Amino acid sequence: MQLQYKDDALTLIESALKEDLGTGDITTLSVISPDRTAHGIFKAKEDGVICGLDLISMVYQMLSPDVDIVFHVSDGDYIHRGDVIAEVSGRAQTMLSGERVALNLVQHLSGIATATHKAVSMVEGLPVKIVDTRKTTPGMRVLEKYAVRVGGGYNHRFGLADGILIKDNHIAAAGGITQAIQMAKKYAPHTLKVEVEVETMEQVNEALAAGADIIMLDNMSVYDMKASVDVIAGRALTEASGNMGERDLREVGETGVDFISIGALTHSVKALDISLKFTLN
Amino acid sequence: MQLQYKDDALTLIESALKEDLGTGDITTLSVISPDRTAHGIFKAKEDGVICGLDLISMVYQMLSPDVDIVFHVSDGDYIHRGDVIAEVSGRAQTMLSGERVALNLVQHLSGIATATHKAVSMVEGLPVKIVDTRKTTPGMRVLEKYAVRVGGGYNHRFGLADGILIKDNHIAAAGGITQAIQMAKKYAPHTLKVEVEVETMEQVNEALAAGADIIMLDNMSVYDMKASVDVIAGRALTEASGNMGERDLREVGETGVDFISIGALTHSVKALDISLKFTLN
Amino acid sequence: MQLQYKDDALTLIESALKEDLGTGDITTLSVISPDRTAHGIFKAKEDGVICGLDLISMVYQMLSPDVDIVFHVSDGDYIHRGDVIAEVSGRAQTMLSGERVALNLVQHLSGIATATHKAVSMVEGLPVKIVDTRKTTPGMRVLEKYAVRVGGGYNHRFGLADGILIKDNHIAAAGGITQAIQMAKKYAPHTLKVEVEVETMEQVNEALAAGADIIMLDNMSVYDMKASVDVIAGRALTEASGNMGERDLREVGETGVDFISIGALTHSVKALDISLKFTLN
Amino acid sequence: MQLQYKDDALTLIESALKEDLGTGDITTLSVISPDRTAHGIFKAKEDGVICGLDLISMVYQMLSPDVDIVFHVSDGDYIHRGDVIAEVSGRAQTMLSGERVALNLVQHLSGIATATHKAVSMVEGLPVKIVDTRKTTPGMRVLEKYAVRVGGGYNHRFGLADGILIKDNHIAAAGGITQAIQMAKKYAPHTLKVEVEVETMEQVNEALAAGADIIMLDNMSVYDMKASVDVIAGRALTEASGNMGERDLREVGETGVDFISIGALTHSVKALDISLKFTLN
Amino acid sequence: MQLQYKDDALTLIESALKEDLGTGDITTLSVISPDRTAHGIFKAKEDGVICGLDLISMVYQMLSPDVDIVFHVSDGDYIHRGDVIAEVSGRAQTMLSGERVALNLVQHLSGIATATHKAVSMVEGLPVKIVDTRKTTPGMRVLEKYAVRVGGGYNHRFGLADGILIKDNHIAAAGGITQAIQMAKKYAPHTLKVEVEVETMEQVNEALAAGADIIMLDNMSVYDMKASVDVIAGRALTEASGNMGERDLREVGETGVDFISIGALTHSVKALDISLKFTLN
Amino acid sequence: MQLQYKDDALTLIESALKEDLGTGDITTLSVISPDRTAHGIFKAKEDGVICGLDLISMVYQMLSPDVDIVFHVSDGDYIHRGDVIAEVSGRAQTMLSGERVALNLVQHLSGIATATHKAVSMVEGLPVKIVDTRKTTPGMRVLEKYAVRVGGGYNHRFGLADGILIKDNHIAAAGGITQAIQMAKKYAPHTLKVEVEVETMEQVNEALAAGADIIMLDNMSVYDMKASVDVIAGRALTEASGNMGERDLREVGETGVDFISIGALTHSVKALDISLKFTLN
Repeated sequence: MQLQYKDDALTLIESALKEDLGTGDITTLSVISPDRTAHGIFKAKEDGVICGLDLISMVYQMLSPDVDIVFHVSDGDYIHRGDVIAEVSGRAQTMLSGERVALNLVQHLSGIATATHKAVSMVEGLPVKIVDTRKTTPGMRVLEKYAVRVGGGYNHRFGLADGILIKDNHIAAAGGITQAIQMAKKYAPHTLKVEVEVETMEQVNEALAAGADIIMLDNMSVYDMKASVDVIAGRALTEASGNMGERDLREVGETGVDFISIGALTHSVKALDISLKFTLN
Repeated sequence: MQLQYKDDALTLIESALKEDLGTGDITTLSVISPDRTAHGIFKAKEDGVICGLDLISMVYQMLSPDVDIVFHVSDGDYIHRGDVIAEVSGRAQTMLSGERVALNLVQHLSGIATATHKAVSMVEGLPVKIVDTRKTTPGMRVLEKYAVRVGGGYNHRFGLADGILIKDNHIAAAGGITQAIQMAKKYAPHTLKVEVEVETMEQVNEALAAGADIIMLDNMSVYDMKASVDVIAGRALTEASGNMGERDLREVGETGVDFISIGALTHSVKALDISLKFTLN
Repeated sequence: MQLQYKDDALTLIESALKEDLGTGDITTLSVISPDRTAHGIFKAKEDGVICGLDLISMVYQMLSPDVDIVFHVSDGDYIHRGDVIAEVSGRAQTMLSGERVALNLVQHLSGIATATHKAVSMVEGLPVKIVDTRKTTPGMRVLEKYAVRVGGGYNHRFGLADGILIKDNHIAAAGGITQAIQMAKKYAPHTLKVEVEVETMEQVNEALAAGADIIMLDNMSVYDMKASVDVIAGRALTEASGNMGERDLREVGETGVDFISIGALTHSVKALDISLKFTLN
Repeated sequence: MQLQYKDDALTLIESALKEDLGTGDITTLSVISPDRTAHGIFKAKEDGVICGLDLISMVYQMLSPDVDIVFHVSDGDYIHRGDVIAEVSGRAQTMLSGERVALNLVQHLSGIATATHKAVSMVEGLPVKIVDTRKTTPGMRVLEKYAVRVGGGYNHRFGLADGILIKDNHIAAAGGITQAIQMAKKYAPHTLKVEVEVETMEQVNEALAAGADIIMLDNMSVYDMKASVDVIAGRALTEASGNMGERDLREVGETGVDFISIGALTHSVKALDISLKFTLN
Repeated sequence: MQLQYKDDALTLIESALKEDLGTGDITTLSVISPDRTAHGIFKAKEDGVICGLDLISMVYQMLSPDVDIVFHVSDGDYIHRGDVIAEVSGRAQTMLSGERVALNLVQHLSGIATATHKAVSMVEGLPVKIVDTRKTTPGMRVLEKYAVRVGGGYNHRFGLADGILIKDNHIAAAGGITQAIQMAKKYAPHTLKVEVEVETMEQVNEALAAGADIIMLDNMSVYDMKASVDVIAGRALTEASGNMGERDLREVGETGVDFISIGALTHSVKALDISLKFTLN
Repeated sequence: MQLQYKDDALTLIESALKEDLGTGDITTLSVISPDRTAHGIFKAKEDGVICGLDLISMVYQMLSPDVDIVFHVSDGDYIHRGDVIAEVSGRAQTMLSGERVALNLVQHLSGIATATHKAVSMVEGLPVKIVDTRKTTPGMRVLEKYAVRVGGGYNHRFGLADGILIKDNHIAAAGGITQAIQMAKKYAPHTLKVEVEVETMEQVNEALAAGADIIMLDNMSVYDMKASVDVIAGRALTEASGNMGERDLREVGETGVDFISIGALTHSVKALDISLKFTLN
């Protein structure tokens, strides 16, 4: 597991457990004695790509170190309704108190991985890469971008510091595409490429002339996209953008763009349904 | 605004801004001078219930106190594509650097309010209340439950500490419904009601006899639900539960249950599309 | 040990250690070499109910993992002056530097457990339960409520979110007891009971008519309390309240109330005296 | 107000408010509308020294800036049953939701100031100073030591870093009083005095010979204390210690010791009773 | 001021104040009464570039809002021994208690700005840019990189996430320069350029052929650097690196490299001497 | 290792790793597979006193527990260019991602230890002690003061709470040296000595008469210093202060002062150069 991923996961889990447990899981504490043990099974209730299994271990580990987990699948596996995902055994109180937080996380990330997988499948065989955006859930960006990679996609920049993306407002402020690109090249760290958002062929040409490294074709028709890609002719990378979650991705991919960025992968997530059933010892 | 709602919002916004800004919004810092001002308009790009407007103010306030906001609508209003939601004016750098975090939050909460509104509309005229669950996004529970209220729904318990809900695993551990209810009544704070999850008519009768305050009818057919409500006859509150996001809510409501709880309101959110366009001064 | 209890304990211990150690235990660091080991004995210096033993382990664990502890008693045991509570052995520096924080915590919680035990003893044989209040030490509520349970008492609500308690000010604001109860029933989560504070028989009748689940008899004479309990006749739970720390608890309990809540259990604590004596190896 | 005092107070209040409000003051939110205002009076219910008034302002300020406070007394004033302490006016929800946290803090600190005042009165006219110890409530040390000053006492060291106090265990580890004092003088910052705990006249002499700056006379009879003070004859400061909360302080003070340190001032606090009554507008 | 800069500054100042004030500035509290006011002057005690003036305001603001500051110079100004930097007036306690923290920060950042200014002066007239490295003080990177800009330099990447820099160890692991560059181009976000560290002309050619965007010439002689720049001929950016703090920067700059990165700017800082003198009112 | 030292180190390392890793070490993640292991050697690139070795272990431990370290030297050893400091082996990703943070810390602390060692050597054979000041790097005081001890120096007070140091501004505010000393003796905890800063012989005499425990001779000529020491004649400790980093320490030490405090030890640090070279397995 990646270092930063783990760190963000722990912070999120701690906050989620506090949020859910509050001053205590009063039902479990009242009804189940502390020394009771149980065995539980995580099972898929629909088909999709599983993602975030490590988080289950982290949730239980944070609660208490008395629950053992055996995983039957790995992050990135395509699982089917009824498949056993993991078996847990240990203290019944711990398992019950951590159940919802663990499921909320895994179902959310698996939902993203599944949606990404679907998008990637639609452009199978084409050289285009499916990438994510900054339209993520507050506090979960690193995890959600991990889910995109698990689903077969790639990551766009993680935030405003690791990529230059000049949008319409920046262009207006700078006084034009050329000026904006020049300013970015002058002041920003030289380790970053310069990407510019354009909406017309005229802007494509200006961006190209000014030395843009990446050109984002925003809300263009497939026809204009294709024409742009032809004009650019490899002199800059190209990225298709703008409600791509509702577009025909194959058609877009066939224009020859290098990347398709899809906000819906992370801003409109449908959780993958997973259940947990216990057998008390 | 509610106290705790504000506190949680600030924590979340701080984490979201750190996540997005990192070591700095390098594009904005390079391309726009600090003394540049601008005017911007938040506009609806689709129909729905708006929610979380205060968060826009908080985002800008946390960045710097030089952005003024005038709201044209209020939380809970049903807005239409093209409606102006708010106008902002002030330092251009601040507006641009905070844009994505503000939009991510408002679009997510408005998505929840809109989905809740839709569910509430489906049972209009019936005495049943639509309620949420604990299937929320980690770190956002208080905000998401606020969005459910804004959409016309009601809140179920906020966590494991402010409600007793005896589920199948608790029942198994306690040795039966009767025992579980007795234990909860004996040990839990006397300010909490006792709710029990049941799946059969037999269980309904046992729960009733043992003094359950609320009976959750889980994954029951409409026929069984109706029969249960009739048997219970007001001696306990009743709650319909189990994939209610995919059920015919009107049909369920007409059985006479007091509450319908829907996990999908918060675990499978579709963001409401909102844009922000600037005019630089 | 209960999950939330542990979490709160760790936070408190960390803050207490920082407060006490500051930039370092300069006496110990100057006078004792790091490789010196010792053996120590925790001994009771007066009679009472011991509570919070786990906290000793946590204090030493947080400082460094080189101290072993063997407990001779358990939380809830009634111990006598001179009894050995625990034996510790390991690095002398660690033991000395953590001593005061460990003792401050255990002596405080044992003080609460002892006072609770005394109150419980006074109503022995009666069905009434002794419960705590929200008059707790800031930052220590979960721990102090644990100590009340260890002393044989029960917990009232943990905070403002897990119980509805309508007091005189709420009643005035709502326009009467009836209105206040109706509003609470309409807006609050249905998992919570509605408790109302009353001072007269008239208010008892109104609360009962409006459907209160629990009626708090505040600052009533024993005579009025008894009359109220008779009128209520099991249709609501009853709780005696108001400077109960200075009342004759047996007399109060004999009125038939279900609960007696005592603020003094946690707001006026007398620490139980415990010493720690080392033998250096 | 002192800087560090304020900082610690804010941290404590934030933790106390989270603890008490949790996910929201559900009673107040249900029963009182957000725009309702009220007027309230803090009144003494028993005699004592008031302490911590600033904390009331901080509590309300942290909740929301819509409550105004006018104080009728100041920290350190001796107040009597029935005296008006402060008047508050503003949003009713804020006042009600913050009431308990504000009262818990002020009642606790006033309890300490009152107990200190009582001890100081007992030695009135003598040059001896009453000082506190490190037997404080975890997380509240700076505030509690402030309350001791407000009550007319003085502060001993705040923690293990701002004072050297060689106790029996340190002496045993060092191989004797002389060695321990020498080691402390050699390694500790030269800004700190060296205090040594002794129990016999022989130890007094050894400590004096080894250059102790302060000699703590622990658990000595008044006779031995007097003899020690005579022998020391101003060559070191003297401090009487050991269950001083249960000793005749005047008698102890008359031995001529410079300081009497009393753990009970902070480890066994009796809260001063204060009430808050609202009038809704 | 830049957003993230402010956020990091506040965190650092809070930690520095806690570190310095601890439980209170006991000298100031004992000797100066809270209502005493004073006037103070910050004066340069040697020549250099001033940097971090905002931090003085932040320090005093965090302590209490009763100190006013008038600045006579701005960040980036070259000041001389004896110049007045700022005048402060307000509560004497606040000024004295915050003095050292304010000075420690400003002297450190001004030291960096001054050293950067010196380096920039040495290459005056040449197109080469002086840039910093990741050899910064833990916890102060954003501030120190700000000081480099204030001194006339530019920033290299801020951390491991906003720039790809393939070093010898990465090359060995990947099996060669070509493979390493290909892997980075395949997996890393497309917004980042690929920089490679080389030590020989052979490596320069391989890096160029594999499509490196930036070539870091590490520890090369001026002769080899010049030869490398000639071969690269604008097809990649070039950066001179390796103990540049001890090299003849003009000579290095004249080789035609685009950047010279100097670790010593931030890892071996000499504080700029500044004094603060008060006049009490 | 000392308790507080470890705590501060962990906080600092956590902050440094977040600062450096951000959302991930994208180079390492792209180029090296997670299961690759390596062997690395930390080597001195110049002569000096090594300090902070534990921090290397902590950095790697915090990243992941899969790196083993064997140290060839210990804190305080004087090492020479080319000496092997430590060997590390384990996961290549972890080693590379933690390298810079580990080196930044150890190089900084070793720089301080080396400078202290040099100062101590200059007064070898004299009874004078070299001590540090509060002119430390924000957030690193405890660590930097540890480095001073490792280099053979001693610590002055750690902050404003564990030592009384009356400076010119305090004297002016109090109305004179005598008054200031009296106030400090009256109000500050009796565990602290009183130190006064003086600049003239007249002030020396006044401080002595008023009972100062320590007299700081600030910016005095060697001649005046010697005269002051003679006058004081052991009745108070003496400390030479004021740009001591640029003075002839031997000459100062020979005046007979007890302490020489040097701010430059920590405010103008030159990092000790250390390299880390990997061999991949």
